[in-house]
Amino acid sequence: MSDISVIIVAGGRGLRMGQDIPKQFIPLAGRPVLMHTMERFYRFNEALEIILVLPEDQFSYWQALCRKGDFRLKYVLVEGGDTRYQSVKNGLEKVTGNVVAVHDGVRPFVSNETIERCFHAAQKYGAVIPVMELVDSIRKVEGDSSQMRPRFAYRTIQTPQVFRTSTLKKAYQMPFCSDFTDDASVVEAAGYDITLVEGNSENIKITSPFDLVVAEAILKSKLENL
Amino acid sequence: MSDISVIIVAGGRGLRMGQDIPKQFIPLAGRPVLMHTMERFYRFNEALEIILVLPEDQFSYWQALCRKGDFRLKYVLVEGGDTRYQSVKNGLEKVTGNVVAVHDGVRPFVSNETIERCFHAAQKYGAVIPVMELVDSIRKVEGDSSQMRPRFAYRTIQTPQVFRTSTLKKAYQMPFCSDFTDDASVVEAAGYDITLVEGNSENIKITSPFDLVVAEAILKSKLENL
Repeated sequence: MSDISVIIVAGGRGLRMGQDIPKQFIPLAGRPVLMHTMERFYRFNEALEIILVLPEDQFSYWQALCRKGDFRLKYVLVEGGDTRYQSVKNGLEKVTGNVVAVHDGVRPFVSNETIERCFHAAQKYGAVIPVMELVDSIRKVEGDSSQMRPRFAYRTIQTPQVFRTSTLKKAYQMPFCSDFTDDASVVEAAGYDITLVEGNSENIKITSPFDLVVAEAILKSKLENL
Repeated sequence: MSDISVIIVAGGRGLRMGQDIPKQFIPLAGRPVLMHTMERFYRFNEALEIILVLPEDQFSYWQALCRKGDFRLKYVLVEGGDTRYQSVKNGLEKVTGNVVAVHDGVRPFVSNETIERCFHAAQKYGAVIPVMELVDSIRKVEGDSSQMRPRFAYRTIQTPQVFRTSTLKKAYQMPFCSDFTDDASVVEAAGYDITLVEGNSENIKITSPFDLVVAEAILKSKLENL
């Protein structure tokens, strides 16, 4: 039993990378992306309850990687669902903490400060997500045309998204809807307000070969005191 | 006299980088970012007219860098204005091509394919910008609250933004407005339609120390056959 928990969702089938192995297992500095991600949370708080949600057919592959890499971090392994929504729901059943984070397995560079900010604010406000301002201008596409939008009015969303466990459980009682692209959208649909805190620019989601190049660079750089 | 031209706008005072030198002069693989950027366009088409807009008080520093780096690429040097709008307007006065690109001096990784796509479409449609789909979810901030937005409906905007020269000149006759965050927004305000083509993910704007780390990695990677 822990006060706080994290559900790490790693549902990648790896199709988008054009590689044979799912994204979460791609080696970064010689170790799977997912190990880096899990260690971020362990380093933040060694007592944090870590719940890892993986497709069931990847369990044995992952466990073999853990043996090979001598990866001894404690966690609860949970079977993923057909959708991210179902995967989080499955993970949520195992949560014992009062406050729970949901984090993408392929975001290994979340900073300690970002995790701290999210948990801290979630204890106060109940539903918190880390966001970043946009660097580039944006346009909205509608049919064949598009219109300028004021970039300062928008934020890109990262994880961990952190909630009072009771709030997230209540939200996840709603039936699945395709508008649920992240946990905040589920919680929002259930009628709760979402609080925004600052993320960190290194906290990228590794989904393309380009992202992998960036990821290796982050690891090698001074930015690696995340 | 050339058929096509590019205005490269380098107005950075370098304040955002926390460094002494403006962003466009920061060394990347030993040479200023701006030289990399200019060479992209030279490699695309050696006959392309290159117009470089720089703050006047940086002329001698830049010219010293060129002598030191034996940088012999031909270009027209034009004095920048107080705003990006005024800088582009100053550059536009020197353009002799029928079609003109406007490109950020701190985007050194625009691919040949992106430049080609933009010029090709501009000859047909008159006003073209390269865009990318969003990787992260986005929210719109309004006052103290924020709402989910469907990320598939949005695009982030890169440069080069390419236009029929007559169109861009007409658009730049309008008085300055703070809504003009890029050239497409000026042209759009003048009543023209904007055509979107695909950009390239390496085509980042170098504005932070994190971007510099990414930039060095791109240069060292296989992605460097842009």
